[in-house]
Amino acid sequence: MKLLSYIAADGTPRFGAVKGEGVVTLNTLAPTLRALLAVPDGLAQAAALVASKQPDVALSGLTYAPVIPDPDKIICVGLNYHDHVQETGRTVTANPALFARFAGSQIGHGQPLVRPNASDEFDYEAELVVIIGKGGRHIPAEAALAHVAGYSCYNEGSIRDYQRHTSQFLAGKTFAGTGAFGPWMVTADEIPDPTTLTLEGRLNGQVVQHTSVGQMITPIPQLIAYISTVLPLLPGDVIVSGTPGGVGAKRNPPLWMKPGDVAEIEVSGIGILRNPVVQEGAA
Amino acid sequence: MKLLSYIAADGTPRFGAVKGEGVVTLNTLAPTLRALLAVPDGLAQAAALVASKQPDVALSGLTYAPVIPDPDKIICVGLNYHDHVQETGRTVTANPALFARFAGSQIGHGQPLVRPNASDEFDYEAELVVIIGKGGRHIPAEAALAHVAGYSCYNEGSIRDYQRHTSQFLAGKTFAGTGAFGPWMVTADEIPDPTTLTLEGRLNGQVVQHTSVGQMITPIPQLIAYISTVLPLLPGDVIVSGTPGGVGAKRNPPLWMKPGDVAEIEVSGIGILRNPVVQEGAA
Repeated sequence: MKLLSYIAADGTPRFGAVKGEGVVTLNTLAPTLRALLAVPDGLAQAAALVASKQPDVALSGLTYAPVIPDPDKIICVGLNYHDHVQETGRTVTANPALFARFAGSQIGHGQPLVRPNASDEFDYEAELVVIIGKGGRHIPAEAALAHVAGYSCYNEGSIRDYQRHTSQFLAGKTFAGTGAFGPWMVTADEIPDPTTLTLEGRLNGQVVQHTSVGQMITPIPQLIAYISTVLPLLPGDVIVSGTPGGVGAKRNPPLWMKPGDVAEIEVSGIGILRNPVVQEGAA
Repeated sequence: MKLLSYIAADGTPRFGAVKGEGVVTLNTLAPTLRALLAVPDGLAQAAALVASKQPDVALSGLTYAPVIPDPDKIICVGLNYHDHVQETGRTVTANPALFARFAGSQIGHGQPLVRPNASDEFDYEAELVVIIGKGGRHIPAEAALAHVAGYSCYNEGSIRDYQRHTSQFLAGKTFAGTGAFGPWMVTADEIPDPTTLTLEGRLNGQVVQHTSVGQMITPIPQLIAYISTVLPLLPGDVIVSGTPGGVGAKRNPPLWMKPGDVAEIEVSGIGILRNPVVQEGAA
């Protein structure tokens, strides 16, 4: 099942499931997709409703929202693919490098990525997103995949000079309009082994990043175990699991996203997240 | 005016203002303190209600919640006092080092700080908190203090080995039950110049940190200007503005918080945030 959040024509936030060329709205089950994920049999209820209904709205022309617009936590993982660690000149650590992004920095599929007026160093980062279903603390790695509701694509847009202002990445990682999340999540029943997925980033049609998710340094079960040692994971929490090599900052010359560009993140079995780039103030 | 959040005897989250030895509940004005701060004349409405009512509940025996239990953003500032930068062996940067803490890691005044089972390296950090009233983006430093609703005390409890697992501080800064926030916020009309405040941390009555807030490397107006360059600040956003020298990790031998200890953070003109320490599972 493909679940997404969107904005209805009257401006109301909605969520639903893809059916054919349309979306079956599911707001009779819960106010938001995050809230649905907190219902123990929410996904089964959604599947039953999707089976019994015709689409309420067409996918074509839909105003997508971030898949989870309002997560309790967005936890990003830095330096989680060897080729990216290598290009940054850093070293592999025994534990994952976690940093946050605020929900207000997110945009949906098709919405503009915003290059801020404060910097031209606007970089792409193709990433696989893990969305938590069943929450918990101290989740053992062996049981961790049972806590995953589904997977999606993320362009973890980064303002590199702000990221390098200090040792801490946050400032460069949470600019308004820089975190693209979509187009939808594919539920975990359809992706029993995420290590088999392929992740690719493209800028204006040119492949700039490409990896197997199996190349992750700290795999998804170990990420969930580590994070849930720190604090409880909740339904709808978002883990942005790291980017492979090929980022724009480490090219010679650097390759920055600029107004008029189109960035795409594709994960096999999930879909393509596509966003145009605009300048702040022109969005 | 002193504003606080608490849990009523029936378990309902409430907020109110201190009046004498009691609290005037303000939930007729807004559902939460964060929501009140988003009402343009919310603080004036609160002041009028407090003047006209007797307290609803006594301060004594109150179950305090974090002052803002549900902020959109908690933005922490690392390395913002020279003596702390010096003791860590780092260098002063031109811009502030920002990292996040998740709301689920917060506790109120009097509630237990939780030493996790994962580590004994549980350190205190005395900090002044800035709570945003009027939101905005690209707020100039000269106008920034007009965006502050008030100030409070924070014990930014840190799990040092997790903080040092990688270059990124987040994992060590957002353990469940490690961020004490309270007891209340004092509205900014009573603190026209926060640089005149004195900040002190005590562990079991012993002074372990002591500074003038005027010693901050990046002062509050410049913090607000920098952060609001990145993304909009919203009413109720929490800026935890950094700790001075004297942290436990940099003492010889290190001084860790352990079950049975009592940690206090005092800011002049605000009050004392006091929390006992317990072991995870015993809370």
